[in-house]
Amino acid sequence: MSGEAIAKSARAASYELATLSADRRVVCLRRLHDLLQEQKDDILAANARDVEEAQSAGLAASLISRLDLARKGKFDDMCRGVLDVAALPDLVGKCTAKRKLDDGLVLRRVYCPIGVLLVIFEARPEVIVNITALALKSGNAAILKGGKESTHSFRRLAACVKAALAASDLPAGAVELVETRADIADLLRQEDEIDLVIPRGSNALVRSIRENTRINVMGHADGVCHAYLDQHADLQKAVPVIVDSKTDYPAACNALETLLVHASRTDDVFAIVQALGAKGVTCKVHADLQAAVAGFDNVVPATDADFGYEFLDLTLAIAPVASVAEACQWINRHGSHHTDVILTEDVGSARVFQKAVDSASVFVNASTRFADGFRFGLGTEVGIATGKLHARGPVGLEGLATYKWLLEGDGQQAATYSAGRAYLHQDQPVEADDSR
Amino acid sequence: MSGEAIAKSARAASYELATLSADRRVVCLRRLHDLLQEQKDDILAANARDVEEAQSAGLAASLISRLDLARKGKFDDMCRGVLDVAALPDLVGKCTAKRKLDDGLVLRRVYCPIGVLLVIFEARPEVIVNITALALKSGNAAILKGGKESTHSFRRLAACVKAALAASDLPAGAVELVETRADIADLLRQEDEIDLVIPRGSNALVRSIRENTRINVMGHADGVCHAYLDQHADLQKAVPVIVDSKTDYPAACNALETLLVHASRTDDVFAIVQALGAKGVTCKVHADLQAAVAGFDNVVPATDADFGYEFLDLTLAIAPVASVAEACQWINRHGSHHTDVILTEDVGSARVFQKAVDSASVFVNASTRFADGFRFGLGTEVGIATGKLHARGPVGLEGLATYKWLLEGDGQQAATYSAGRAYLHQDQPVEADDSR
Repeated sequence: MSGEAIAKSARAASYELATLSADRRVVCLRRLHDLLQEQKDDILAANARDVEEAQSAGLAASLISRLDLARKGKFDDMCRGVLDVAALPDLVGKCTAKRKLDDGLVLRRVYCPIGVLLVIFEARPEVIVNITALALKSGNAAILKGGKESTHSFRRLAACVKAALAASDLPAGAVELVETRADIADLLRQEDEIDLVIPRGSNALVRSIRENTRINVMGHADGVCHAYLDQHADLQKAVPVIVDSKTDYPAACNALETLLVHASRTDDVFAIVQALGAKGVTCKVHADLQAAVAGFDNVVPATDADFGYEFLDLTLAIAPVASVAEACQWINRHGSHHTDVILTEDVGSARVFQKAVDSASVFVNASTRFADGFRFGLGTEVGIATGKLHARGPVGLEGLATYKWLLEGDGQQAATYSAGRAYLHQDQPVEADDSR
Repeated sequence: MSGEAIAKSARAASYELATLSADRRVVCLRRLHDLLQEQKDDILAANARDVEEAQSAGLAASLISRLDLARKGKFDDMCRGVLDVAALPDLVGKCTAKRKLDDGLVLRRVYCPIGVLLVIFEARPEVIVNITALALKSGNAAILKGGKESTHSFRRLAACVKAALAASDLPAGAVELVETRADIADLLRQEDEIDLVIPRGSNALVRSIRENTRINVMGHADGVCHAYLDQHADLQKAVPVIVDSKTDYPAACNALETLLVHASRTDDVFAIVQALGAKGVTCKVHADLQAAVAGFDNVVPATDADFGYEFLDLTLAIAPVASVAEACQWINRHGSHHTDVILTEDVGSARVFQKAVDSASVFVNASTRFADGFRFGLGTEVGIATGKLHARGPVGLEGLATYKWLLEGDGQQAATYSAGRAYLHQDQPVEADDSR
């Protein structure tokens, strides 16, 4: 099928999905879970072929690790994830506002599915299962394109998804699975049929997609997170936060990449660099701070290019700033609008920082690593968005929903009100049967 | 200044605006109101020059009418609008969710400005004042580009805006005013500095902008609104709704363009066409309905091109459908996802229609003309959006806001929780001082 044909099939399925009850969608997810468990051996055998071929091709160990579904707990986590998503509260039809415009003329705003999602991912084969669960739970159709490294796993998992759809009498187009790279360029042009692109993978993948489509893209390319040690920081509190932000999982998008230090606290850089050194972190230190860290063997001089750079490993850039205002300006210029932290005991500094830093997540005295859908208590994580429209920061199921305005009247004409009748515009409490 | 320089100036101003109190922004709007009143004669003199030049150039009467600020009530409405927007509740910093992740680790989601808006409009000079009010009220910087027909008015109004900013000590870049067409192409490339484009004008303007930028665009190109006369419609109720939807203001985006009639109700087309004829409406009627309307002189045969067409005048296309399901499919294929109405007394048909029609506003037994920010009780109207992400349908001040996640801790590390400590994830009631 061409990209256009695939997109049209998904669009048609999305219209059908939008009208189905929550139960119908949940039944399909439970069926998918059972099929995955039943076919575990076959799926892992297909996955082993992918891993072997990746090893023969000499692919990076990190990529092979992401590919490998046989790693301890990974397959069962994937299956449990389907049931977890199925058990979340259903958003479709949920009423979020109700207003009486006049007697017998009542407006409601209700959640509804966005429509058709295009999800493009790289090595991780379990994404096909995660996204199928999220899409069906939210009433969306999804088109999934995996990486060529996971072809065998992809085909086996796709067969389970298609079987689950068929067994639950859901439209086959609800989840479309695309194998070839050629289709992507065509799909990225289907702006009339596809509502949202979600890239899950490297910065290069995300950038390339953003540059090649007019469809809205939800996600993030970079995670250049900053911490700012304020004049009024408590060092005992600050050091563990800095170390955790950098070392808890350095390859994550919410890991710390740059530390800014108030000019009055440059002496404290000694203790910070020492604590980071004990965890194997190399510090790239601004010239103005070199005196404070003379003698450490985990210190190298920073260059301009180190600031605003996403190391994704055990490296941290450190620079001085003259004030909280300068820290905010620095972060807005060099950061990636993802997650930034101020370390301070001063409420005034914290409030200025939280207002002035133009990022999705802005923390006070807590690790950047908390920027995560599960840690935020969203129930699941669709991804982390650094754009400003629609969903921002860690995105839960709400990020896969939009809303519509439903007005129920009894034959009212707008001309009646232009002629003098007044609107009531009374906000009303949302009741259980307003969500349907 | 180049488009890039203008955008960078607006971006810098947006960072300053984001930190200012609501009072500071409201004071500027009150000052703007007073300046407009003081300089009313000068502004109207400049506007009269625009009108004269437009007349000499032989521009359309409808365009000249839109240009003319001297029309009865128009100038005063413009001024009152500034005070109305100033008086709306402030959204910046408003907390919309609060969750205790753990003792001493509290997450809040708060509204904040989007950043920099680029507003491109055509003849109406009062848009510069409307948008200045909306942007400053919502804490955003705005770049405004008007049409060349309103150059003299634009310059005088721009001078008032700049004077109001200066008098209230707000950054001069908070509202940037652009006169030349050459700048637009450059501005539309500033995706790192501009967050949202809002086109206010013709379909052609909106389409051209969408095709020439990667920045998010909020608005609508077409308003192809449908009404569906269901098998279970009450004709006495339906006819006035159809007439109002078509005739209340035919040039509006929320005016009716196509009527679909259930096959069992084709006899009722007679009464509908008669009522429309009395209001001067020409009906373009599908071949299968011709028999029902033989003899009317306001009836012409429809062609395929009439369905999905935005007439914007006293013309209505009429076609039969076999079922509510076919009506929904027709609307999703031929409509513009703006506003569609079902006329029915049957709750089941109404619910199917409201779920299945993929439009921003879906009404039961009420005129399409109610799809409007003021009529919905939103306090103001930024525009009507037919996209699905961020704001949808009539857009109020919330559409100019995004949100950020603020986490306040006491030195917490993510590793503590990975090592076994459980999150509390307790949703908490939002209190007054959570918004700040």
